[in-house]
Amino acid sequence: MKQFHLFFIVFFCILTSVNAQNNKIDSTTIRGIFDYALTEGKSYEWLDYLSNQIGGRLAGSPQAAAAVEWGKQILDTLGLDTVYLQPVMVPHWVRGDQESGAILSSNHFGQTEVAITALGGSVATPMGGITSEVIEISSYEELERIGKKGVTGKIVFYNVPMEPRNITTFTSYGNCQQYRYTGAGRAAEFGASAILLRSISHKIDKNPHTGSMAYPETGDRIPAAAISTFDAEELSKMLQVDPSLKFHLELSCKQYPDKLSYNVIGELKGRKYPNDFITFGGHLDAWDNGDGAHDDGAGVVQSLQVMQQFVAMNYQPERTLRIVLFMNEENGARGAKEYARKAKLNGENHLFALESDAGGFVPRGFTVDGTEEQVAKIAQFESILEPYNLHYISPGFGGVDIRPLKEFGTVCIGLRPDSQRYFDYHHAPSDTFEAVNKRELELGAAAITALLYLIDKSF
Amino acid sequence: MKQFHLFFIVFFCILTSVNAQNNKIDSTTIRGIFDYALTEGKSYEWLDYLSNQIGGRLAGSPQAAAAVEWGKQILDTLGLDTVYLQPVMVPHWVRGDQESGAILSSNHFGQTEVAITALGGSVATPMGGITSEVIEISSYEELERIGKKGVTGKIVFYNVPMEPRNITTFTSYGNCQQYRYTGAGRAAEFGASAILLRSISHKIDKNPHTGSMAYPETGDRIPAAAISTFDAEELSKMLQVDPSLKFHLELSCKQYPDKLSYNVIGELKGRKYPNDFITFGGHLDAWDNGDGAHDDGAGVVQSLQVMQQFVAMNYQPERTLRIVLFMNEENGARGAKEYARKAKLNGENHLFALESDAGGFVPRGFTVDGTEEQVAKIAQFESILEPYNLHYISPGFGGVDIRPLKEFGTVCIGLRPDSQRYFDYHHAPSDTFEAVNKRELELGAAAITALLYLIDKSF
Repeated sequence: MKQFHLFFIVFFCILTSVNAQNNKIDSTTIRGIFDYALTEGKSYEWLDYLSNQIGGRLAGSPQAAAAVEWGKQILDTLGLDTVYLQPVMVPHWVRGDQESGAILSSNHFGQTEVAITALGGSVATPMGGITSEVIEISSYEELERIGKKGVTGKIVFYNVPMEPRNITTFTSYGNCQQYRYTGAGRAAEFGASAILLRSISHKIDKNPHTGSMAYPETGDRIPAAAISTFDAEELSKMLQVDPSLKFHLELSCKQYPDKLSYNVIGELKGRKYPNDFITFGGHLDAWDNGDGAHDDGAGVVQSLQVMQQFVAMNYQPERTLRIVLFMNEENGARGAKEYARKAKLNGENHLFALESDAGGFVPRGFTVDGTEEQVAKIAQFESILEPYNLHYISPGFGGVDIRPLKEFGTVCIGLRPDSQRYFDYHHAPSDTFEAVNKRELELGAAAITALLYLIDKSF
Repeated sequence: MKQFHLFFIVFFCILTSVNAQNNKIDSTTIRGIFDYALTEGKSYEWLDYLSNQIGGRLAGSPQAAAAVEWGKQILDTLGLDTVYLQPVMVPHWVRGDQESGAILSSNHFGQTEVAITALGGSVATPMGGITSEVIEISSYEELERIGKKGVTGKIVFYNVPMEPRNITTFTSYGNCQQYRYTGAGRAAEFGASAILLRSISHKIDKNPHTGSMAYPETGDRIPAAAISTFDAEELSKMLQVDPSLKFHLELSCKQYPDKLSYNVIGELKGRKYPNDFITFGGHLDAWDNGDGAHDDGAGVVQSLQVMQQFVAMNYQPERTLRIVLFMNEENGARGAKEYARKAKLNGENHLFALESDAGGFVPRGFTVDGTEEQVAKIAQFESILEPYNLHYISPGFGGVDIRPLKEFGTVCIGLRPDSQRYFDYHHAPSDTFEAVNKRELELGAAAITALLYLIDKSF
């Protein structure tokens, strides 16, 4: 018995010592990853180009084609094993030249020009625009209560502010987003002539925020546009005083036939398990009314920097590390669907996927979409990441572009930057390079590299 | 024996249940504090006024007097038990009208105008400025190595970038700060005609950052100014090509006799222990070259909001809660010293002090300057604050204005906002209201309120 005990003690000591050594190697490597990111990382420089030389790049646009070319050219310089384009047909919606709005109040306020942005997917107004009375609505329940009699012929103005009390701003996004996405269809059921949406932002300013919308299969297709939070509050106040004021809206946007575009892909082949995949990336497309710096230029350049760093480390991954710059996240997620379809077709084994699509702000942690056991396994890395102010690995959403991989049982992980400022810039003209801080961006890239390294080494 | 056991089990159950109930009350109160801050808090509105209607407010300036009046007027409206001004004599340094710099390179680059900011406390140049060759220095060791022969008659250009690898940016500040504070005195020892400092910022831009400096008791007093990080890099490159280029520097700043100013103070009297004090606050003064929105308008308006909130909660504190808007943190900390002197004189018992002076960014935790036991006692609140993304209560610095209280054994606590962007704005023209996010500011105020509430209730 004594010998038996001794055996276990010795075995335990060896095990502990090996673990301690591995932990030390890991923490030295992780330190090195952050050092590199903060001194050698190219993400910020790349983001400057993508935001300022290419700018907004909605699927199907010339700028999206430029972004594909740019993304591939950078991957070509990184020294990867493979770089290629994955063709995908994408929707092609174009804003057009004409976009204007005005509040017309003959009795009280005169005419007030208002900045407008068509929601992505909207139809145009008739040439010359439409001019209708406005009915302010704070929920679908209210829309139903008011009913056809009060709505017919009017512009439905969804004035639903983001709930300020949620600590994570994404929690407040969902309730507002439904009015953007399905608001036109619902309003059309009650005879509305168009919809105006209060921009989904916590910040009160004059930037209108766009975003995707869709029409139901049947029913009238009415124009849909957003006004800024500032103008929404003004319009609401004016309606109190002059309920019969009119709004003039003109949009010239149009849906064209689908176009060919691409996901941009690069790989470092797995040394041990080449058919086991760890995918990571962001989306290359961005709304046309801003420069798409946070959404999702940040995720794109961070992902590129992850590859830059792995190559600089001369890292030979166990599994194939694959960067994917997805096309068309904003208005269709066709790139995401095509990527998953091809993965299945090729019999690829997708173990993990990680997405950065929540802005280039200071990283705070990760959310993991997986079984309780899978989440716990990844959460074991919390302590090694904590010195870098990454404080949590919790159950939660991975990301829109990696979600289709869920059908294979892939563990989907989302980088979680601080969310307080995200919706100030989201889908707005203010989403520019200047709104991104270099260090915050680089820390995000380092966080992704560190977690992917730990996952590849540990599973 | 059995009865005895039973007694303990019952006792334990009651204890646990009381604790659970207290925890529940606490967490409901904390939730209420955050809700209030994000919906009713006035900090952002106040910061707008302080930054845009008063602006930079260096001790002794008309703007500092306006800030005192403004701070007291707001405290007067909050419904506190006491509001008063605490007189303190402060240094009075004035920048003056003339401040200019230029690189003169007859051979290669011609003349380049460079934005300049005098360091606070600097003497002026002679009228018409000085024009000297420049010697670039990366450390005091290098200065000594080069010695008098290489330095005499020249402008010493301290080109010491902030170390990018430290995750907490304040860690990198110290090394650079020494050149700002003592650089002129050290350079004068070697016969320098003036110093130019590379601005202490991670960001490469054209904003020169000021900050305090001091001369040794003896020795020549030479002018001291900062140039932007961008211009520092340019100047360094030009010096490589043209080591004999000259720099023209003109400053008209001047030290006047001390002036009377004030700490602005308000109190909610302690119900149980009126002579036990919990002090919290920020500093009212700010450098004159920006609007002092982050430094430290944020700390001031957060502290005001803390009081607004305690009154709204109708909170009757156990100990006296005292807000102090300190004067002259930036160039003398006279307000801090006077506050501690008076506290001693009045026999006040100062248990805790909390300072917000690290910018109005998203709060991440607190640092506590106290014994190991004291830190551990406050760290017990980590779990109740964690849902608000406050992830740590760790040993560390409290703050410059509360440090003099250390002599009484006061536990000093610093709010720790995220530090990545702080030095982009610190002491620079870019420290404006627009650089502050409303939610981030409010979350900081809520974090302070929550911790003060927990401390007052628990000790």
